[in-house]
Parts: sequence; C-alpha cells; structure tokens
Amino acid sequence: MSTGDFAEVDHGRFPRIGLPEAIYGPGKTENQIVQLAMEMDAQGQGPVLVTRANSAAVASLLRAFPGAMVYPGRDQFPDALATVVIAANDNRPEKVGIVTAGTTDLVVANEAAGTLSACGIGFDLICDVGVAGIHRLLSKIDQIRKFDVVIVVAGMEGAITSVLGGLISNPIIAVPTSTGYGASQGGQTAMMAMLASCAPGVSVVGVDNGFGAACGAIRIINLLSAKHQEPQEVPTVAEHQN
Amino acid sequence: MSTGDFAEVDHGRFPRIGLPEAIYGPGKTENQIVQLAMEMDAQGQGPVLVTRANSAAVASLLRAFPGAMVYPGRDQFPDALATVVIAANDNRPEKVGIVTAGTTDLVVANEAAGTLSACGIGFDLICDVGVAGIHRLLSKIDQIRKFDVVIVVAGMEGAITSVLGGLISNPIIAVPTSTGYGASQGGQTAMMAMLASCAPGVSVVGVDNGFGAACGAIRIINLLSAKHQEPQEVPTVAEHQN
Amino acid sequence: MSTGDFAEVDHGRFPRIGLPEAIYGPGKTENQIVQLAMEMDAQGQGPVLVTRANSAAVASLLRAFPGAMVYPGRDQFPDALATVVIAANDNRPEKVGIVTAGTTDLVVANEAAGTLSACGIGFDLICDVGVAGIHRLLSKIDQIRKFDVVIVVAGMEGAITSVLGGLISNPIIAVPTSTGYGASQGGQTAMMAMLASCAPGVSVVGVDNGFGAACGAIRIINLLSAKHQEPQEVPTVAEHQN
Amino acid sequence: MSTGDFAEVDHGRFPRIGLPEAIYGPGKTENQIVQLAMEMDAQGQGPVLVTRANSAAVASLLRAFPGAMVYPGRDQFPDALATVVIAANDNRPEKVGIVTAGTTDLVVANEAAGTLSACGIGFDLICDVGVAGIHRLLSKIDQIRKFDVVIVVAGMEGAITSVLGGLISNPIIAVPTSTGYGASQGGQTAMMAMLASCAPGVSVVGVDNGFGAACGAIRIINLLSAKHQEPQEVPTVAEHQN
Amino acid sequence: MSTGDFAEVDHGRFPRIGLPEAIYGPGKTENQIVQLAMEMDAQGQGPVLVTRANSAAVASLLRAFPGAMVYPGRDQFPDALATVVIAANDNRPEKVGIVTAGTTDLVVANEAAGTLSACGIGFDLICDVGVAGIHRLLSKIDQIRKFDVVIVVAGMEGAITSVLGGLISNPIIAVPTSTGYGASQGGQTAMMAMLASCAPGVSVVGVDNGFGAACGAIRIINLLSAKHQEPQEVPTVAEHQN
Amino acid sequence: MSTGDFAEVDHGRFPRIGLPEAIYGPGKTENQIVQLAMEMDAQGQGPVLVTRANSAAVASLLRAFPGAMVYPGRDQFPDALATVVIAANDNRPEKVGIVTAGTTDLVVANEAAGTLSACGIGFDLICDVGVAGIHRLLSKIDQIRKFDVVIVVAGMEGAITSVLGGLISNPIIAVPTSTGYGASQGGQTAMMAMLASCAPGVSVVGVDNGFGAACGAIRIINLLSAKHQEPQEVPTVAEHQN
Amino acid sequence: MSTGDFAEVDHGRFPRIGLPEAIYGPGKTENQIVQLAMEMDAQGQGPVLVTRANSAAVASLLRAFPGAMVYPGRDQFPDALATVVIAANDNRPEKVGIVTAGTTDLVVANEAAGTLSACGIGFDLICDVGVAGIHRLLSKIDQIRKFDVVIVVAGMEGAITSVLGGLISNPIIAVPTSTGYGASQGGQTAMMAMLASCAPGVSVVGVDNGFGAACGAIRIINLLSAKHQEPQEVPTVAEHQN
Amino acid sequence: MSTGDFAEVDHGRFPRIGLPEAIYGPGKTENQIVQLAMEMDAQGQGPVLVTRANSAAVASLLRAFPGAMVYPGRDQFPDALATVVIAANDNRPEKVGIVTAGTTDLVVANEAAGTLSACGIGFDLICDVGVAGIHRLLSKIDQIRKFDVVIVVAGMEGAITSVLGGLISNPIIAVPTSTGYGASQGGQTAMMAMLASCAPGVSVVGVDNGFGAACGAIRIINLLSAKHQEPQEVPTVAEHQN
Repeated sequence: MSTGDFAEVDHGRFPRIGLPEAIYGPGKTENQIVQLAMEMDAQGQGPVLVTRANSAAVASLLRAFPGAMVYPGRDQFPDALATVVIAANDNRPEKVGIVTAGTTDLVVANEAAGTLSACGIGFDLICDVGVAGIHRLLSKIDQIRKFDVVIVVAGMEGAITSVLGGLISNPIIAVPTSTGYGASQGGQTAMMAMLASCAPGVSVVGVDNGFGAACGAIRIINLLSAKHQEPQEVPTVAEHQN
Repeated sequence: MSTGDFAEVDHGRFPRIGLPEAIYGPGKTENQIVQLAMEMDAQGQGPVLVTRANSAAVASLLRAFPGAMVYPGRDQFPDALATVVIAANDNRPEKVGIVTAGTTDLVVANEAAGTLSACGIGFDLICDVGVAGIHRLLSKIDQIRKFDVVIVVAGMEGAITSVLGGLISNPIIAVPTSTGYGASQGGQTAMMAMLASCAPGVSVVGVDNGFGAACGAIRIINLLSAKHQEPQEVPTVAEHQN
Repeated sequence: MSTGDFAEVDHGRFPRIGLPEAIYGPGKTENQIVQLAMEMDAQGQGPVLVTRANSAAVASLLRAFPGAMVYPGRDQFPDALATVVIAANDNRPEKVGIVTAGTTDLVVANEAAGTLSACGIGFDLICDVGVAGIHRLLSKIDQIRKFDVVIVVAGMEGAITSVLGGLISNPIIAVPTSTGYGASQGGQTAMMAMLASCAPGVSVVGVDNGFGAACGAIRIINLLSAKHQEPQEVPTVAEHQN
Repeated sequence: MSTGDFAEVDHGRFPRIGLPEAIYGPGKTENQIVQLAMEMDAQGQGPVLVTRANSAAVASLLRAFPGAMVYPGRDQFPDALATVVIAANDNRPEKVGIVTAGTTDLVVANEAAGTLSACGIGFDLICDVGVAGIHRLLSKIDQIRKFDVVIVVAGMEGAITSVLGGLISNPIIAVPTSTGYGASQGGQTAMMAMLASCAPGVSVVGVDNGFGAACGAIRIINLLSAKHQEPQEVPTVAEHQN
Repeated sequence: MSTGDFAEVDHGRFPRIGLPEAIYGPGKTENQIVQLAMEMDAQGQGPVLVTRANSAAVASLLRAFPGAMVYPGRDQFPDALATVVIAANDNRPEKVGIVTAGTTDLVVANEAAGTLSACGIGFDLICDVGVAGIHRLLSKIDQIRKFDVVIVVAGMEGAITSVLGGLISNPIIAVPTSTGYGASQGGQTAMMAMLASCAPGVSVVGVDNGFGAACGAIRIINLLSAKHQEPQEVPTVAEHQN
Repeated sequence: MSTGDFAEVDHGRFPRIGLPEAIYGPGKTENQIVQLAMEMDAQGQGPVLVTRANSAAVASLLRAFPGAMVYPGRDQFPDALATVVIAANDNRPEKVGIVTAGTTDLVVANEAAGTLSACGIGFDLICDVGVAGIHRLLSKIDQIRKFDVVIVVAGMEGAITSVLGGLISNPIIAVPTSTGYGASQGGQTAMMAMLASCAPGVSVVGVDNGFGAACGAIRIINLLSAKHQEPQEVPTVAEHQN
Repeated sequence: MSTGDFAEVDHGRFPRIGLPEAIYGPGKTENQIVQLAMEMDAQGQGPVLVTRANSAAVASLLRAFPGAMVYPGRDQFPDALATVVIAANDNRPEKVGIVTAGTTDLVVANEAAGTLSACGIGFDLICDVGVAGIHRLLSKIDQIRKFDVVIVVAGMEGAITSVLGGLISNPIIAVPTSTGYGASQGGQTAMMAMLASCAPGVSVVGVDNGFGAACGAIRIINLLSAKHQEPQEVPTVAEHQN
Repeated sequence: MSTGDFAEVDHGRFPRIGLPEAIYGPGKTENQIVQLAMEMDAQGQGPVLVTRANSAAVASLLRAFPGAMVYPGRDQFPDALATVVIAANDNRPEKVGIVTAGTTDLVVANEAAGTLSACGIGFDLICDVGVAGIHRLLSKIDQIRKFDVVIVVAGMEGAITSVLGGLISNPIIAVPTSTGYGASQGGQTAMMAMLASCAPGVSVVGVDNGFGAACGAIRIINLLSAKHQEPQEVPTVAEHQN
C-alpha cells in the first residue's frame, strides 16, 4: 500500500507557511508511520517529526532513523505521547521559554520542545513553578523576560498564565493540560480559565496541544527573522492549485 | 395574607446554628418582603437582613426601618442586588478581609459585607487587586495575613485565589462572580478554576453567593468564640420538631 | 468619592509590559469612567482607552475629551460596545490585518482596531470574507501576507481561521464572536472550533475579546521593535512591591 | 436461544423505506451476530450488513459467509469498527463522493462506504484533503462536483464542510468524527461547528455515524431513481400493524 | 456609506451553487438591509430574501418593495423573525413537505417556507402533528410520502423525527427548534435527540435554522432537476478568484 | 382564521389516556388562546386548561369564561406563568400532596395544583419546608404519608427529594425548579441532583414542569380508580387513525 | 472486619418505605458483598439483592447462596452488571411491563426485572420495539395497556417514551440508557429527551438506573395494595432516631 | 537524575502557610516518588505525605519508610488511591469529623484522614449515613456537633451536605465524590448540588479532593491554635524570593 492510499501529505506546507507537517501517531500502524516519515524525509522539504508516538512506533522509527531524537527522552515518555524528530533544521539564534506549572505538565512541554528543535529553535524548560508557591515563579521572571516567546504549560486552574501575563511583555502562548482530576475536567477548566485570563494579550491553544503552541511560537520567530532580511518569495495559492 | 401562606420562616436557625435566615428578595413583592422583615424583627432572634433587594424593595424597607443599612450604599447598588440590614448583632472582635480581583466584583463583596455586619463582625474591603498587576496584591499581603478569615471575590479566571492561597495561612473562602463575558461563562469559569486551584485548602461557594461566603466565615468565627468561653447549649433536633 | 474607593489603577502596566490598562465600561457609572480616564490621562503613562462603553458613557467622555476617537464610529456602535480612545501613542511602522468572516463581527473587530490605534499601530480591516464564498478570501491572501500580525474575527463555526492558517505564515490570533444563534452557542462553537483548528500555530482569545487579541498582537510587535533597538530596562517586580 | 428472545428484527424496513436494518455489533455475542445475519440473509429482503464488528465477530462472520466484504479491509480495521457486508443489492448507476479531512477519519468513511456498497451504490473515497492545505481540496473540486451526493467526514473543527458547502451545489451530508484530542471534545466540536456552518444547506448526522450518513445519501438516491420510473407501491402502516 | 464598507456580497453564490445569499437581519440597520436588498435585486442574479427581519425592517422593506412577501404573514410574525422575499425564481414542479410537531414551531417552519418560495419551490405545511397523539401523524403519512423532500420542524424532544424516519423513504432534514423551556434547553435537547435518532438517514441542521433546512432541500431538488436535463456549466473556482 | 390553521387539537387525548391536552400559552395570541379554549370546551371531552398564560391572556380568558379558576390566584401570578382552569372534572376521592422547598417554588407548584383541579383531584400545598431547617419537614411527615401521591417541588440542590424519598413509601414525583442563581444553573443542578438521588424510586420531570408532574400523579390515580371498578374500554389506536 | 466498619445498613428501609436496600457491587470486595448479603439475609427483613455485581462477586454469591437468581441469566450478564437476588418476597398479583427500544438496553431492563422479582412482583419483558419501525410497538399496545405500571428502557434519543406516553394511560417510568455512541452522549441525550417529552405525565430516573425505575414502580404497586387492605402502621421518624 | 530535573519542591510551604506540600503520585515513577519523599523528609520541615499512590509506589515507599502509615489501610486501598504518611507532626488537641454518605466515599474520606494525621490532627470517621435513611444521620448529630470542623464526603446528589448544614453550627467543608454512575456525572452533580446548597455557609472543594478538604480544615485549626498563643512570625514574600 502506498502512502497515497491513506494520506495526501502536504509537502508544500513548510515552504508555504514555514511550519512542518507532523505525522500524528494515533490511528496509524507502525509501518504507516515509518513509511510516511521516510517519504517526507526523502522530499527534504524541511523538518520531519512524529507526535504522540507509542513505544512500538518509537522503536520502529529508531530502527529506521537511528539518529532520531525522542522527547521527553528515549525511555521516559508515557505511552503514545513521544515526539520523535527525524530531521531538523539548522540552529537559529532565537530562543523560546517553556514554563510549566507542575511536573505532570512535562509531557506536553516536551511536545513543544521537540517541535521547536525540529525547526532549529532553542528552548529552555522552566519546570514546576506554579503559583501555589509564587516565589518559585517570581525568582525566574528575569530569566523569562529574556526569551523571544514564552510558552506556558499548565493544568488545573492554570493561574500561572495570568500572573506571568501581568509581569512580562513577551508574546505568551498558553497550553492547558489534562493534568489533574475532578474539577480539572480533563483540561477544560485550565483552557477556559486561560481564555478568560485577566492578563491582557495572552493567547491559547487546545488542551495538551504542545505542537500547536510551538507552531504559534515559530510563526512569531519566522516574522522576526523575515524582518531582519530581504523578504523571501512566499508560494502563491495559484501554484498550489496546479 | 399572612406570611404563613407563602413562607415557613425558620425562626430557630440563629439559635440553632448561629447563622441568620436572610429574606431573599427576587420573586417576592415589596409587601411580602417588608411583612417578613417585620415578623422576623419582632421575634428578636438575632440579625434580620434582606438580600438581592431591588430599588422598590429598598425604598419600602427604608420607610419601614429608617435606620436600616444598605450595601453597597443607599444609592450605589445595581438593581435587585442590594443587601439591607434591618437588625444587627452587637459588635464582635474578629475581623474578616474581603478581597476583590476587580471593581465589578464589588456588588458581591458587599453582599458578604452586609451579612457580616448583620452578625456584628467587622470587615475590611481590599478592592481591585487582581493578579494582572500582582504587585497590587503582594503589597497587601501583610495586611491580609492579619484577618481571621479571608473572603476572595473574583470573576474571569479567578487566579487571585490560588496566588493568595499559596501566600497566607488564614482560612480562605472563594466566591466566583459572574463578572465578564464570553469565556467567563457567567462565573462558571471562575468557579471551576477556584475548585481546581493548585493552592491547598481553599474552599468555594456558588457563583455570586456573597451571603454564603459570609456565612462560611461566620461559622469559623463562631467556632473561635465558642473556644474562648464556656460551651453554650445548642438546641437539639428534638426541640425543633415540636 | 475618589477612584481609590473602587479601583486600584495599575499605572505601571504600560511601562512594565507595554500594554495599556483599559477602562472596562460595564458596571461603572459615567462619572466613574470619566474620573478614571482623567486620572489615567493625567499620569501620562501611555495610551488611555475605554472599552464596551454605552451611549451615555461615550457622550460623557466626548464632553470631557472632545478629541477622543470612537470605534466603530461616533454613531455606529451598538450600545455598550464602543471603544473610546482618549490618548494614543505615536504612530509606529508595523501593521496588523484584521480579517472578519461576516459583517456582524465588525463590532469586535473595532474593539481590536481601537486598541491598536491607542498604541499607535496601524491596521487594515478586511471585512466579510467568510469561507462560504472562499474566492472572497483567496483574492485577499496576497494583501494579508503583508501584515506583521493577523487578527481573525469570526462567529458561527469560525472555519476561516483554519483556511487562513494553512495559507499564510504570519502570526495569527483568532477571536471567536457571539454572532449567530442556535448551534453557534453564543460563540462557544467558534471558540472550540478555533482551538481544535487543523491549521498549525493559530492561537485563540476569549469570545468577543477584541481587546485581548489586539494586546496579543501588540506583544508581538513590541518584540519586533525591541529586536531593532537597544534593550530597554524593564521595571522589576521588586520595584512594584514598594 | 432464538433471535426472538433478544431482538425483534424489522424485516420490513427495506421494502418499507428502502434502507437496510444493520446489525449493530457492540453488546452482542459473536453467536448472536452470526445468528441474526443468517436469519436476515434467509429472508432475502435486501442488503444484510453488520456495523462496528470486532475481530472475533469478523472472524465468525467470515467463517459463516466466506464471500462477505469487510470495510476498511480484512486486516486493516481498528477493533470493534469493521463493517461487514453479507448480502448486497445489484449495482446502481449513481455515485457518492466520500471526502475525508484526515487519515484518521477513514474508519468512519469506510462505514459509509460499506453501507453504500451493501445497497449497490458506487462511491469514490477522497482522503486527507483537510483545509490546512486547501490546495489539496481545491484541486479535487471538479471531481467532487460530479457526484450525486457528497459525504464529508471530518474531526477537529470540521472546517472542510463549510469550504466545500460554498463551492459545490451537490447535496452534502457531514459526519463529525471523534478524531483528535483535547479541544476536539470527542467529536462534539466538529459536530457543533458543522451545525453552525456558514455554508448554506449542509446537514449533519451524529458523531462517527458513517452508517447514518450513507443512509441519508441513499434516501436521496432512491428519490432520484423513483423519479426516473413508475412510482412503486410503498407498504402502508396498516399492513405492518397486522 | 456604500455596502462595500460593511459587506462583501457573494453575488456569485446563486450561479455557483444554486442557493441564494440571504440578508441576515440582526445587527444591521433598516437602511443597511434595504440598501443590500436593492443592490442584490439590481444584480438580478437569482432570489433575494431577508431573514430574521424585525418590524421596522419589514416596514422599510415593504416601502421599498411593495410586492415583497412576508412569512409567516404580514402581521403574524414574532419580532425579528420575519422572512421577507424580495425577488423569487419561477415556479418549479417539485414539492417539499414541512411538518411541525407543535404550533410554536411555525415561525421556524415559515423561514423554511419563505426560502423555498424565493427559489420557486412549492411546499405544504403540515402543522401540529407531534407524537403525543401519534394518530395525527399516522393519518398524514400517505400525504407526506408524496413530497420530494421532507423538512421536520420540532422542539422539546423532537421524537417525531424518528417516527417519521422509520415510516417514509423520502430524504428528511430535521430542524430542532428552541420551543419549550427547562429540559428543552433552548433547542439543544431536540438537536441532540435528532442527531442520535434511531431512524436511519435523517440529517440535521442547527437550532431554529429554517433557512438552512430549506437550502438542504434545494440542494436535493437542484440535483433532481439537473438529472432531468443537460448538465449546465458550473462556474469554476478560478473564475471567482478574479 | 380557524384553529385548524395553526393547531391540530388532540380531542381524543382525554378519552384515550385520561390526561387533558393543555393549551400552552407562550407563542400564541390572546385570541388564539381563547379560540382554542372555546373549541375544546365545546367538545366537552374532559378538562380544559391553559398553562403559562400571561396577564393579557388571563384577562381575555376571564372575560370569556367568568367562572374560570386562576392559579396561583387572580392577582398573584408572575407574568406568563398563570394556570387557568376553564372546565374541570367532578371531584374524586384521591388526594395529592404538593410539597415545596421554598417560597419561590410556589408558581410551579400552582401549575401542578391547577392541573390536578382540572381533573377533579384534591391536593394540599405544604410550602417552604426545605432541608436547611429539616424540623420543618420532619414535623409534616405524618401528614405527607397520608397522600396517595406526593409531588416535590424544589430548586437549588433539591435535597428535600432524597430526604423525603427515604422517609415515605408513597409514589414521589420530583419537579426541579429554576429558582436561584449561579450554581443553580437555572434548575439544571436540581434536576441532575434529583435524578442522582440516593433515595430509591423517586422519578423526575423536566425543570419547572408542574403540568407534567401533575399528569404523572393523575396516571397513578387513574390506575387506582380503574382497579376499583370494572375495566373501561380504552379506545384503540385504530379508531384514532380514522 | 465487621460490616459496621464500612457500612451502616439501613435494615429499617423495607418496613419503613416498602423498598429494599440493595447492595451496590462496585467498589466492594467479593467478601464484603457476601458478608453484607449474609447479614441482611439473617435479618429477614424483606428482599435481599445485589446490583452491578461482577463475575467474581456472582461466583462468590452463588457459592454462599446456591439458590440465588442472576439477571439477565447466569452466564449472560456483561461484567459488573449482574443483578443477584438472594431473598425474594412472596409473589404478588400486580404486573409490570418492561419495554425496551433495542437489544442493548436489555442489561438495564434486567436490573429492573431482578429488583421487581426480589419484591415478588411479576413482569413481562417486551424487547426491541423502538420507533424506527413503529409497527413493532403499535402491535404490542394492547398488551402494554394491561400492565399496572410500564417501565420504558431506551438509549439514543429515547423517542419510544413519547409515543408510548401518548398511547397508554398507565403510569410510565422512563429509564435512559448509555447505549449508543457519539451524539448519544452516554445516555445524556436520551435522559434530556425523556425529560423534555411532549407526552404528558412521563417521569424519568437516572441513566442506566434500572433499580431506581423498579423502585418507582414498586411505590405505585404498594399504594395499590395498601388501598385494598387495612392501612398498616408505618414506623415513625421518632422510632428511628432512637 | 536529581529531583531538580523534574520538580521544584516548595520546601517553604509548611513554615509559610502551615500546610504540607503532598507528593502527588500519578505521572511519577516509583523512584521519583521515593526520591522526592526522601528529600522532603531530610529537610525535616513538617509533614511528608504521598497522595494517590498505586500499589507499586506504596510497596516502594514501605521499603524505604517501614513505619509509614497507609490510608485506608495497607491492603485495603483501590489502586492509585492510597495516601501514605511518611512523617507526621505531633498530636494536637483539635478534632475533625469526617462524615460520608456511602461506603464508596471511604477512599476520598481516607485521603482527608491521612492528610489530617500527617499534620497531627485527630479525626473520627462517621461512615455511610446518607439521607436515604435519615435516622442514621440524625442519631449522630450530637456527636458531630462536638468536632471543631466537619468534612462531609458524598457522591450522587450530595444531599447530606444541606441537611447537616442546617443542623450544626460547625464550619463545614464538603467534598463531592465521583461515586455512582449515569446522572452522577462523575461527581459533577454532587459538586454543583453542594455549591447550590440551601444550607448557609457550606463551602466546597473539587471532586474527590480529600486532600484539599483536609487542608481547608487545617487552615481553620491553625487559626484556632494561633488565637490561643503568641502570634508567631510568618515568613514574608521577600524572604522567599531570595
């Protein structure tokens, strides 16, 4: 079975909008994942990565691509939640801060981390600084102010988003997580709280969507880069229709 | 029409559990409200108050009880949201802090304030110290630590609750408010966020329920008083069944 | 009554994070709004604006500040939904595109427009290009690609967000609106759809939150500016605690 | 145990309304499924099919009916999600287009495909043309316009429905799928978005209901056929009451 | 102000997909509505209609277009819920049945009726035949079987949809209405019940969306007509992009 | 306009199932209501009543039927919530207890009361005995045990239902009401709480549905009567289809 | 460990309200279940039954009580969903009809059946007569009219409830089930639809609550019995407080 | 890997606010849990406890800390729901009452019990006294009135909260549990019902949050203690920022 039987890969996405098309693991067999990764790698059109891979898929991918990077680490990922980077862009000078409220938010933070890495963008992970002990966060504010973009990852009530949003001027992208139980409602509470944040200018992606948050950050960093160089020709719709 | 035709007033509530039965304004005519207030005042069994009174009810009550106190002030309350104190207990030494995230939370804060007043309990109102500018809250922490109980009133995402809960050791009762629009979901977002708070030991009452939060505080203050004096005989269920 | 009785204005917000503290109209009297606007204008610390003002508040503000700008126009705003700009920053070179799916999304788009204006940022309004007739949107793609940031404003199912997100590389901030009836669920449907968007890197603010979307855009533009000049000293938390 | 002990098969459904009664797999034993399939096959009243069969049921059915067709393929179906066609009608000239937004929507698309097959109706599967790369969809529009009915299968925010609805004049039936996580809310987001679609005249069936969508298409195709021939006597209610 | 300042009318919609672009009343001034109606009427590209017009808009429209038709009748429509047909297509031979469960569903039924009329399609209204007295519906089944398409309009639990879906073979489009109170949840209950219908092949549009249901019916009827004549050239996307 | 233009009155309902078809006020003009009441009264087939009538409708009905009974009393009903009994059955020996938790539940209780009256069934109203002062309820248990059926009417958390359900053996029908604000969620909280009641055998009708609760009680009482006399011929479906 | 360490069995429930206290299986060990069953059996105060028992518990119970009855049959129950009757009352003359819409509703129907059996009440099971083929239901109406009480068990949209409610005069208790997927929302859709039913006097219990529905029926049947004999002394609250 | 790689332990929480930072089990490996427990135990800053530990974690902890206490008992806890107390404070004179509605609420009650124990606070467990047999609760009222604080643990509709709230004057903290099925909505129903309670002054924590409820009680008890001795210096925010 060729990949065309089950997928219409958008090879033009990276040249068109500067963002990678990730291979989403769930619902695909290990073979399909490896086959798609190989096809995309062969195209050589920018980064290649797999999100939400389970152990079997990770093992198959590592056999096919021994140099692939696994987030959050080769033997530390919960099943079906690994991000595997097959091909990455060259390193770029910008840096993203990934701030998590708790330790259980780390898996989602690592999906963002892997996606940034694939695009050659550096990041620092500032972990477990939720507002229940706000001195932990306050002591990191100067460090956080130096990032180009900040991704905040939090479950439960996500209050760290509003505190941070009132203290720093950087662009902030908030990722609610499904951490917690009961009133956390599988991340719905954090998501709604982030959207209703009293701190201005915070924007939000879907629950557990570390990939989406990273892409949001990359859009901003691509703009920064574009502003420092000659504008590059962006492919038109017309081309893609042919 | 006697009050018995539409209400079975729980005159024993104050002696039984130390909390007043408030007359809830909506759905009652001005006459019914005044009639009930007079009957309860005549009983002389503790505080008498009306909650969520509209302008007409306030006017009628002030004619019948010229000395009544109106929260948030005789000509500052939004319609159907005044708290009117007809009869109040003697002043007591304890003090409650009422902290609001924004200015629009003041109406609910005043329902709590009126209820505390009716029971002779002093309060300080610390207004508009939401976390979007956290220095406003941090500069008040020492003051807030001196209260016996703290009532936090907040809409939107209610993040102030978690920050405060991580900084002070006092009992905290959180009141979500229906402030805001869109993602605030009429207070549902703040309520769920407060219930999912990462700060330990914060407890929550229903949306806009300033009366309930004050009653929660009074339960704690009544316990404090009881511990400082001879235990007073609490009426038994049996008595009340007769 | 001084403003200190009902509001603790965060005068430091603009120097601290480069975003204005807007005066939120609902729940305040005309006098309170004008009083706050005068106090903030007197401080001279950046832009001054009022959001969700009703007709009476707009009239009072125009008496006090005859040169104020009203969005979406002095006699075109639905009641309680005008944005009034009292004091604006100098013009800046960046430009934001505000794209709406329908004509009823214009009020929210104008809240974003007014906020951007207050901060000296130019914008173009591209109106009524929802995907039910996708040629309307496709014919504007080249124009949209030239903006530094794009704000997408849409109700109903908000599908324009995903289409745009797949065609342009700019940072995109989506604002769901309460346009429509029935299955639109007061904007909840558009909000959830935007958060679940299949286009990568789109981030979202709360329903009808044009102010928040503009602030998100300003964070990005402030970053762009900062990158072009010497880093300016940002006030520390410590300062604000004193 | 006879089938009458647990099921009251509606043998008259096909002659009455031209739609098959499918055997719904979950909650039935393999034996019950095979027993029902044999009973219905023996009646010879139109198509016989099983939906949402698990591996064990598929195996049992293939033993009993070696010529049965399995959708999406004998060894490609996720457990409990196979559609097995036991008996099919003669081929008919009309054709349905089944368009999916992503590859994970294929299972639901195949439930529709199997149901159409059972009724002798041809279909083309156009897979993975979601709007994140809209050129994929635009390049297929001419092909899609040739179908008699179009079934759109999509999860996440389902935006493809609105784009397609604005470009083609064919009857469109949208099937939301439970694809995705977090903000996708198990298909609820796509379902609400499709119902709130800005494109006119799109109608919707329940989440993952590929069978229902196919039946909707068959109703339209039956109407087309009926219009080309003498009206056939439809059995009356009265008959069925006897 | 020209209409171009607030609307980008999709004049090509009717030739492109055979469905009218209706002017949606809410949020527009009477002048804007009349101005748009005149512009669309001047184009002469198919039907012109206004939905959800209030009394003032109806009055203005009737002054500008004395021959306009008002559904559900010139002085019987609830405010903001009139459908006004300015220009209608020639009569066509097909017929749609509009079946309502109760009398309060009539307003939504009339929005469908007006839309059909604008497109030259005849309809019969079968009113108040909900299943609480099922003989009312059963006695109409023979009549209902003769329609080309059936639109079912129902609030509360919408059970009529499932009964009808099991008795007739016609294409059925169900419209949930916001009729009722309490457990009806503003139409949400009927909508979910219709989507979960045990009768196969029923498809659903959003709450109160009579216009959408009619458009769904028109898509089917356009297919019927197309099948009876030479295929007509449908304009391509390319044309519309210019 | 004859009633047949907007309503298909189910005159057979009373002889068929022993329950009246009430005229539901909202969405009908005063004239339509009076016209329907006269038509039904003329038929003489059992009770005639109007529910949720507003003041204007009540006035018109009283002009047409001077002897009509109005619940909760001619000048005590909130607008659009009066129950008007035009024609009532002869008195019957059974008795229903209607127990309310609070005074604001009285309107819904009176809808039940009016419906029972119309069917000739006596009732006692036991008002304002919610569990916040449980002695009020306990002192009435002996009285409540004497009713044939008990209707419990409560808003907020509806806890009275569970307490009562554990103390009495009578059939109990619970009616949640939209009393209260915030966490009461317009009656949704009481409804879900009653459905999740830990007391066995309590059944529930929709929010504010006093009419439905009364009909549930009448079904039980009709069964009681039927058991005491010769079985009466129940009309068959067949008859009603003619 | 004695049962008093984890349970306070309400031995007085049967004499007090005529309903059994069932042992709810989930969350209890096999030993705890058997221990409780033995204790309750030893008391000899009415029926003893276990609901939602899993295979292990059933096996243990059958070892301890070889004559126990298992619903829906010793080797046909889905895990954790068996109802085991340990001790049953003498047979009584009344009869309940249990009507299910589909075959997957049978498990819940059997929970009701087991509970009725334990109380000595006969029942007939009428299975799989949902309204998608309404002749199946219509042909059973005469049989259904002969029952004293009817329990309707249905998932999906539960439309059978409304049809039945309009055709029979018996008391009807509706049980929504978690049958189905997607738009069925785990039974929530059926539950809301039943509560919003257009048929008067239908009352509802919680999703899958077959035990509760049976108890509701038993309350009615106990009333019937009581009316045919001398009133029996019901224990008072006072007794139970001692 | 040091704990600093995945957690930023808030060692200052106990001295700062008098509440322990618990190690939350889910999402951590056994090694991480033991490592964190050892680090916190070594600090010697107050109580050390683990919540929601699974069997493996409990086993590992008991190997490392043979004297640890396990709630609800070493071999009685459901998996992933044990509370393990590693280090406890000295005993204190106050006492908390933990009252549960049913036996399945015991796990959550034990999380509260373990947390209280860790802080040296005594408790009594009053189990299975839900209101379906209210005499069970009434007979315990005198005992319950003697506690300093009462924690009420209940699922389903949580009605015990309101009854208790009307009978006792103690501070009450209600914990909804995810006990039950169907209409219990995983604890959501109990949570909303408790928040809407008609009994004044009851406050609520999130579903299944026994730890949070205990912390709420400890806040009150700490206040009681503080009132009986010299005020102790509370660490300031400034200290913690260093």
